[in-house]
Amino acid sequence: MQTIVHLHKFIYMQFSSPVAVSWIAEFIGARLIGNTNAQATGINEIHKVEPGDLVFVDHPKYYDKCINSAASFIIINKETSVPEGKALLVVDNPFDAYCKIVQHFRPFEPSSAMISSTAIVGEGSFIYPNVFIGNHVRIGSNTIIYPNVTIMDHCIIGNNVVIQPGTVIGGSAFYYNTKKDREVWYKKMPDCGRVVIEDDVEIGSGCTIDRGVSHDTIIGKGTRMDNMIHIGHDTVIGKNCLIAAQVGIAGVVNLEDGVTLWGQVGVSKTLTIGANATILAQSGVGGDLKGNRAYFGSPVQDARDKQKELVWVKRIPEIWEKVMKK
Amino acid sequence: MQTIVHLHKFIYMQFSSPVAVSWIAEFIGARLIGNTNAQATGINEIHKVEPGDLVFVDHPKYYDKCINSAASFIIINKETSVPEGKALLVVDNPFDAYCKIVQHFRPFEPSSAMISSTAIVGEGSFIYPNVFIGNHVRIGSNTIIYPNVTIMDHCIIGNNVVIQPGTVIGGSAFYYNTKKDREVWYKKMPDCGRVVIEDDVEIGSGCTIDRGVSHDTIIGKGTRMDNMIHIGHDTVIGKNCLIAAQVGIAGVVNLEDGVTLWGQVGVSKTLTIGANATILAQSGVGGDLKGNRAYFGSPVQDARDKQKELVWVKRIPEIWEKVMKK
Amino acid sequence: MQTIVHLHKFIYMQFSSPVAVSWIAEFIGARLIGNTNAQATGINEIHKVEPGDLVFVDHPKYYDKCINSAASFIIINKETSVPEGKALLVVDNPFDAYCKIVQHFRPFEPSSAMISSTAIVGEGSFIYPNVFIGNHVRIGSNTIIYPNVTIMDHCIIGNNVVIQPGTVIGGSAFYYNTKKDREVWYKKMPDCGRVVIEDDVEIGSGCTIDRGVSHDTIIGKGTRMDNMIHIGHDTVIGKNCLIAAQVGIAGVVNLEDGVTLWGQVGVSKTLTIGANATILAQSGVGGDLKGNRAYFGSPVQDARDKQKELVWVKRIPEIWEKVMKK
Repeated sequence: MQTIVHLHKFIYMQFSSPVAVSWIAEFIGARLIGNTNAQATGINEIHKVEPGDLVFVDHPKYYDKCINSAASFIIINKETSVPEGKALLVVDNPFDAYCKIVQHFRPFEPSSAMISSTAIVGEGSFIYPNVFIGNHVRIGSNTIIYPNVTIMDHCIIGNNVVIQPGTVIGGSAFYYNTKKDREVWYKKMPDCGRVVIEDDVEIGSGCTIDRGVSHDTIIGKGTRMDNMIHIGHDTVIGKNCLIAAQVGIAGVVNLEDGVTLWGQVGVSKTLTIGANATILAQSGVGGDLKGNRAYFGSPVQDARDKQKELVWVKRIPEIWEKVMKK
Repeated sequence: MQTIVHLHKFIYMQFSSPVAVSWIAEFIGARLIGNTNAQATGINEIHKVEPGDLVFVDHPKYYDKCINSAASFIIINKETSVPEGKALLVVDNPFDAYCKIVQHFRPFEPSSAMISSTAIVGEGSFIYPNVFIGNHVRIGSNTIIYPNVTIMDHCIIGNNVVIQPGTVIGGSAFYYNTKKDREVWYKKMPDCGRVVIEDDVEIGSGCTIDRGVSHDTIIGKGTRMDNMIHIGHDTVIGKNCLIAAQVGIAGVVNLEDGVTLWGQVGVSKTLTIGANATILAQSGVGGDLKGNRAYFGSPVQDARDKQKELVWVKRIPEIWEKVMKK
Repeated sequence: MQTIVHLHKFIYMQFSSPVAVSWIAEFIGARLIGNTNAQATGINEIHKVEPGDLVFVDHPKYYDKCINSAASFIIINKETSVPEGKALLVVDNPFDAYCKIVQHFRPFEPSSAMISSTAIVGEGSFIYPNVFIGNHVRIGSNTIIYPNVTIMDHCIIGNNVVIQPGTVIGGSAFYYNTKKDREVWYKKMPDCGRVVIEDDVEIGSGCTIDRGVSHDTIIGKGTRMDNMIHIGHDTVIGKNCLIAAQVGIAGVVNLEDGVTLWGQVGVSKTLTIGANATILAQSGVGGDLKGNRAYFGSPVQDARDKQKELVWVKRIPEIWEKVMKK
């Protein structure tokens, strides 16, 4: 029984083999400047790039950061100087060019089968009726997928996993490029990531776990999720976390190991909650939180401080009386 | 590629051809008074009626408003004077009579097919496996419906729409007539409306959009919805709105264009949120809000006012100390 | 038309016929002390046991309570004195022994049929396409189950019930035994209960109602539930309750008759809300509440008190000014 999940290894869109930047430049109608003979190995966003990657930038504020990042090839809307060994691909609209490349290498691949013929299901696993399993999905051993579950393309489910009915794994990210001068303001960022569910995870009914945009959405080994929990794109949940019903976690969040979130907690995007932290019910988390502590409130604060604050609020009439007497 | 969605045109229950009020009176066992030879063209609630419509009223407080509304025919539980050209249909229980008429003209029409033979799907659209499409549904062109989606009878989906897995379009409204002297207190209002999704809308996984009771539930062109969002009956969402995960919007709400609702916001019924307003996460909206401003809190207030209030609350111990010193 | 639902009768796991405790002791590798010739009739948790039941205890704090409860047979990790007529089954790990017994008598019974051949559907009921109905499910008369609904094994649905699309009835409980010295911290308690939906209940789209662990999860006659409501294991909802969208109710909660919960309310576990109480939107209920009153806030309090508190908070700046002037 081999573990088929690669832990915390971010998977962005890598090309199946290196692609000549000259071909890409022609494909997106870009003027190519700098190292015109190079090969690109993948494409990514600025905060995740590695050498060999393409990246795009369309705002002067980020030109320098992008050109000097690990990325080797920069799709950009202004000609500028380029470091040794790198190349610029100059186009009017870098975001559209980025989308065109992503959609070319990861095209919409509809499946008319309930279980795609490219999906792999391990031995001892049981798939109930009415489950949809998309292309290139891999499911480990001794895993149970209950009825009416949807698992979209490229997702990875480990061993000894349980997914209760009606849950959606690998739906598309809520992640848009906004320009208010267009008729339709919000343009979807194409998503190249997957959902990776590690071994021994149990997921309740009616949950939705979105696939990553530029890397993977990951649910760590042994984590338990109740019903109707939303997990946003590119979010990484650690091992042995406990997440109660109706919790919502936005995109690009990092929950370290052993975090407990009680019911209806909301977690905003791009933040980290430290190991073994506990967030009490209905709290709203808007920024990083340290581990090994309890938090409460919307906005969230240290649970004991919040408890004291609730007592102080009840004492306002008493304060008022004292003030009026003096 | 023709747009099949009629924007913001409320569709209540219109008869397929005019029906003699004398026939309706007999059908519901009513005494007919006034213009007994007239023809009814439809049926509606008091706040949406047009000439030719039937309407019902069972509380003396609303007799005058109803009789003097645009409606031509009033189902009522007391004989009273009736304006020229109108008619009264007098019965003991107007609500039961209203339900009997609605159910006659829009009977329960179960479908045993996954995709009803009366449904129309435009060219270039792709319907994944395990999708249920009810009677008389129309879906535009280049639209993608992901697995395990349910689209109930009479709903209209535009062009270039994306609906992620597990979402329910056109479920029945949560709308009851209450009388606590019955064994079963809550009696369902039959719903005659549809859900209309305009062009270029994207809807996340696990959402539920209820059909209208007396007109349509409408999602405006270009609006983007994240996962697990609930939209109540007869609610109208404007164009280019952005709605984050786990937001709940009750019935008969009006969101003007460009409104942004962050995660887990709750919006109460029969209110309007003005254009380009932003409601921060976990807020609770209980009344009308003006556009072009940000709001926060439960209950909601101006976001900057709320921010100041949060600071003041933290200063209560300091105030206490000052008071005790004096 | 016979009512097939037994109201408020807790159903825990009863053996189909009495089982010799000597056989059970051998099956779990226990040393048997006391009344070794007795027959066990069922198995249950400490707060629900009846004479003839097996129960387990693994913490010295609860030894006495457990041994002196109504249970006749105690699975325990320490040899101690045992009352006349009872027996101890001594093992190193009572919880594992308990799970082994439950899983033996209620084994995982996967179904590959959309509607199990062991399910019973009453006359006049309509089951839409894409509905999964598990083993031993019973559905009454004149009930409508909409598309993409999942009803898991052993659940009971009454007469005149409506279940909107995408709802999950009888998913597994979120209920774990925690030990942080294991690689996987949380071990699932096997659940033996069912979901029982009484007559005349209407349930919205995308709800999840978990089955009981040791007795039944019950939705009382005439109760109305909106969309995306979560009901935890072993929770009992009274008659004619009204539950708005996105409410979450944890496990082992008791809602008495006529309770109203508005949108996004959260209710913590093992508490009671009294008859005809009303909880306003987004409130968080953490303890017992008396009936016939309205409540608001997170944490919840009397609605009028909360309303006054909200006014006092807005007066803090005024208090500050008065203090500074004196």
